[in-house]
Amino acid sequence: MERKEISKSVLKRLPGYLAYLKTIPEGQSPYISATALANALGMGEVQVRKDLAMVSDGGRPKIGYNRMSLIDDIEQFLGYDNTTDAVLIGAGKLGQALLGYSGFDAYGLNILAAFDANPASETVDGKPILPISELESFCKANKVLMGIITVPAVHAQSVCDNLIACGIKAVWNFAPVHLEVPANILVQNENMATSLAVLSMHLQAQIKDKK
Amino acid sequence: MERKEISKSVLKRLPGYLAYLKTIPEGQSPYISATALANALGMGEVQVRKDLAMVSDGGRPKIGYNRMSLIDDIEQFLGYDNTTDAVLIGAGKLGQALLGYSGFDAYGLNILAAFDANPASETVDGKPILPISELESFCKANKVLMGIITVPAVHAQSVCDNLIACGIKAVWNFAPVHLEVPANILVQNENMATSLAVLSMHLQAQIKDKK
Repeated sequence: MERKEISKSVLKRLPGYLAYLKTIPEGQSPYISATALANALGMGEVQVRKDLAMVSDGGRPKIGYNRMSLIDDIEQFLGYDNTTDAVLIGAGKLGQALLGYSGFDAYGLNILAAFDANPASETVDGKPILPISELESFCKANKVLMGIITVPAVHAQSVCDNLIACGIKAVWNFAPVHLEVPANILVQNENMATSLAVLSMHLQAQIKDKK
Repeated sequence: MERKEISKSVLKRLPGYLAYLKTIPEGQSPYISATALANALGMGEVQVRKDLAMVSDGGRPKIGYNRMSLIDDIEQFLGYDNTTDAVLIGAGKLGQALLGYSGFDAYGLNILAAFDANPASETVDGKPILPISELESFCKANKVLMGIITVPAVHAQSVCDNLIACGIKAVWNFAPVHLEVPANILVQNENMATSLAVLSMHLQAQIKDKK
């Protein structure tokens, strides 16, 4: 179907639908309605109906969606069927954890290699950790478009500039700092430090209330 | 200083200030002004000045902040000096990666143990993986207030309900699904699947534009 403009809030809900659809056992009806999906997930029916209509045109009145086709439509929409090759910069603790995490396969992400100013080891789970001096030739040889930044915050902007010079178009940033990029580059921030601060402040407030 | 109400956007910037302040070498002046910090990070001076005033009352006209005191004030504000004990539910790939990641120490997070319906091993990096049946007694014995959810989306709500019944007040949710919780419980979502979908969609659009 034709690709429509989609908001981030819809994008946030799609992986939830997908996860639920995949857990329905084989023996069930091959069809599922937006209403049934909304009830199962405790969500509003109108919202689910609208969200599904954004990503699939397979919905039929009174029958609903063919479940397997809907799974395919959502996965295609989210790009999970296209494997995206990425490089990761900064093979510290977080970088090594992400490099060794095999669960990204399900989302179509393939981290080819990590790069570090001072590689402490040669590989993590069979993936190479290379000196940063090899980044440009590696990205160009492998036509890499996504870069993952796991360096300390103070180095993140220069690493980001370097990635863009190497042809990267999308940056997944785990450093707790705002990155300046040209308009055609997308930065997605994953700020775990901020999340922890928000949680920690909530707990402090709760403990204070009890006193 | 008295704790003021603070917005999430301020919270997001604080870890960046902290990271930069910690990289300034010992030999430099013990003072730093909001202007100098704003210039170093490429941010607006007014914003930095306001943010710092929220977390520290140590700023002096024409001199600025004592750098070490400012670091302490930000860390105290973010709760990094209070260690928060947490349990993690779901010792799959992501759960094990988080359990073995030692970098959370710097943010005051201490994951005591993981719980799983079918523990595949007994420990990860010395941290125990326990059967889910032991969750309640463990949380109560250790007065645990934070739970980290890394189970598949379809099980996340029941795990969340279980955690709340065990006395958890703050939930860090890595499952790609919305969780319903009572008003006094805070859920912080870390939706890596959504981030990857956003990045992937950007790349697809870029590739399409080139054709």
